[in-house]
Order: sequence, then C-alpha cells, then structure tokens
Amino acid sequence: MEESWLPTLMTDNPQAGYDLAVKLSRMSIKAIQPDADVRAALRTVYEHDASALIASSQTIAQNFNTVAAANNYWK
Amino acid sequence: MEESWLPTLMTDNPQAGYDLAVKLSRMSIKAIQPDADVRAALRTVYEHDASALIASSQTIAQNFNTVAAANNYWK
Amino acid sequence: MEESWLPTLMTDNPQAGYDLAVKLSRMSIKAIQPDADVRAALRTVYEHDASALIASSQTIAQNFNTVAAANNYWK
Amino acid sequence: MEESWLPTLMTDNPQAGYDLAVKLSRMSIKAIQPDADVRAALRTVYEHDASALIASSQTIAQNFNTVAAANNYWK
Amino acid sequence: MEESWLPTLMTDNPQAGYDLAVKLSRMSIKAIQPDADVRAALRTVYEHDASALIASSQTIAQNFNTVAAANNYWK
Amino acid sequence: MEESWLPTLMTDNPQAGYDLAVKLSRMSIKAIQPDADVRAALRTVYEHDASALIASSQTIAQNFNTVAAANNYWK
Repeated sequence: MEESWLPTLMTDNPQAGYDLAVKLSRMSIKAIQPDADVRAALRTVYEHDASALIASSQTIAQNFNTVAAANNYWK
Repeated sequence: MEESWLPTLMTDNPQAGYDLAVKLSRMSIKAIQPDADVRAALRTVYEHDASALIASSQTIAQNFNTVAAANNYWK
Repeated sequence: MEESWLPTLMTDNPQAGYDLAVKLSRMSIKAIQPDADVRAALRTVYEHDASALIASSQTIAQNFNTVAAANNYWK
Repeated sequence: MEESWLPTLMTDNPQAGYDLAVKLSRMSIKAIQPDADVRAALRTVYEHDASALIASSQTIAQNFNTVAAANNYWK
Repeated sequence: MEESWLPTLMTDNPQAGYDLAVKLSRMSIKAIQPDADVRAALRTVYEHDASALIASSQTIAQNFNTVAAANNYWK
Repeated sequence: MEESWLPTLMTDNPQAGYDLAVKLSRMSIKAIQPDADVRAALRTVYEHDASALIASSQTIAQNFNTVAAANNYWK
C-alpha cells in the first residue's frame, strides 16, 4: 500500500504540485504516528491552535519547494 | 475553485513574487483548517502574538525562496 | 505604494544584500499585521525576548539565502 | 555498524526516497540520544504531541528535499 | 561602519566559512536589537537555555548553507 | 585548534557525510556556548526532551543538505 501513494513528484500544474506538498506533509505525520485514531484526536487539537497551523505551513512550504524544483517550476 | 488560485509561479516582478509568497503561506493555513470562521478567530489571536508572526515570516521566507528561484530572481 | 518597496533583488554587495534580507523579514510581519501601532507594541516585546530574536534570525537567514543566490553570491 | 545504514542516497522511486527521508530523521534523534530506552520513552510522549509531530514533519521535509535532489527528482 | 562587516561571502576554507555563518547569525540579532546592553542581558539567558541554543544552531546551519554554496563548497 | 576541525566538506560516502552534519550541528552549540561544563549540563537536559531532540534533528537535516550538495550527493 505504501508503495503507491507517491509514484512521482511530477504534476500537471502548480496547483496540483501544491496539493502534493500538502499530501507529503500529512504523510510525514502518518509516518511517525501510524494510529489513525490518535492522529484524528491530535488533529482536532492542532486545527484550532495557531502555532500548530503555522508550523504546519512551514512543512508545506518546504515540501512545495521540493515539488516545485522537481517540476522545474512548471516553466 | 481550488484549481484556479495558483495558475503559475511566474510573476512580473519581485514585489508580485513576494505577494504570491504571502498568498502561498495563507493558503497552507486554509489547506489544514478549511473552516473560515475558525481561521478568522485564530487570526485575531496570532496577529497579536509576536512568536506567531515571526513563525509566519519563516513560512513566507521559504515560499519566497521558491517563487524567486522559479522566476530566476527576475534577472 | 506596495509596488515600490521591492523593485529588485539585485544589490551592489553582500552587505546591501543582507540589509535587504532584513527588510524582507520585516515586511512579512507587516504583511500579516498591517496595523503599525500593534506592530510597535509587539516589537517592544520581541526585542527583549531571546527566543523571538533567534526565530527572527532564522527568517533573515532564509531570506539572505534567497538574496545571495539571486546575486550569484556577488562573485 | 554505523557504516552500513546509509550506503547511498539513491533510491528506485519517490516513495523509497520518502522512506529514506523518514529514516534520516529518525537517525538524527539516535545520533543525539543513543540510549534506546530513553528514545522509546520519549517516543511515547511525542507521538501524542501535535507540536512534536509537526516539528518532526519539518525535519522529514528537509531531508526529503535533500534525497529528492540527490535523485534528480526521479525524472 | 555597517558597510564593512560583510565585504564578501568568499572565504579561504570551510572553517572560515563556518565562522562567517556564525557571524551572520549574530549580526541578525544585532539588526533587530541594536542595543548592546539588552543583547548582553539576553545572551546570558539564552546561553544557558537548551532550546535557544538549538534554535541558534538552526540559524547557523542555514547561513552555512548559503556561505558554502557561495564558495562552491571549497572544491 | 579551531582551524582544524573542518578542513573539508568532502567525505568518502553518505554515512561519513551524515556524521559530519551531526558534527557541524554540535559545533554550532559550541560556538555560542563555549563553556564545556555548561554544555554538558544542558546536554543532560535536552537529551531527555523530545522537543529539543526534534529541533536538533532539524539542524542536522539542514547541515546534511549542505554536505550532501557539496559531495554532489556521492553520485
């Protein structure tokens, strides 16, 4: 199952690349905390915590940097 | 709707690129917390919190790095 | 007004590039918190808080990375 | 023993590269805290802490950036 | 005076480049908090605070990344 | 003495590069807090603190990014 969630870093456009960056960020939480129930409980916490949301945005920004470079910035 | 907010990383000049970096940062908060009312409530909190503002500036800096590279630094 | 604060990432030398990185970092705080009075109040707080100063230095370092690359490291 | 856990940064595909990024992140915790019992105790703490999980996701994102570049983004 | 502290990013060797990265990190604290007495007071605090030291090491790592790239990694 | 701890960023393989990234991270703590006794005291604290360990892993990840690029990813 794990093999199929990231077949490629290539996307058709920037928007799809951004969505992939969000997905990469989510999957790293899953990699560390595999229990879906625990993740769901934590999610209700951090979705209402400004610091956690901003920290998450840093992860997404880093992943988007990677995905954008992979796609040569969709030039 | 989601498809249209990021059609390209190319901008006419550095200022427009910076504005896009700010937008990318805002959109990542939206990606994690889709509820506009919750975001509005959190926003009033973090706009008055120095640590949150600085953490947000880190996200913007990372995104600006990506956008600037995409535009070959507007050389 | 916003159009004119970042006409270019090119600077004459590393020192001017560093100053621009500091400016980019300040402007991201302004982008999130447009109220000058609130920013002034927060500034008196974080200028005396070691953690906030160090976090700000991370933002400047990221922005300097971008500006330095834009200038091909002033080689 | 240490010599063999990172023979190469090359992987067959993005998914394997992502797994390597997770491994690199785990190994850095081990490098700083070599005691397996202490790590296990800490792990039960941070697996249930949203901030710690998100901070870990930042480490993974940075390491994935490195691994992806090493593999020329599996193009 | 400010003009002269960063004449170039080029250094003779990696060690000198690392020292420059440390200097860049210190100067960003100075850029935000110009008062030497306040900085000295804060310094006695963060020098004894593990979190602050580690956060500072992140700033140095980012700046070293920039300086190392500027010097083509001293190859 | 300081001159000799970083003669080169080149390493024979990824594992040695990773070890160098850990060393670079440790040296930045030393650069800020030169007192070995204070560092030892702080170390016993942060080795048992999940947040500090994860923050350290971010520093290592950034430094590994630099070292890996310097070695052209050991291709």
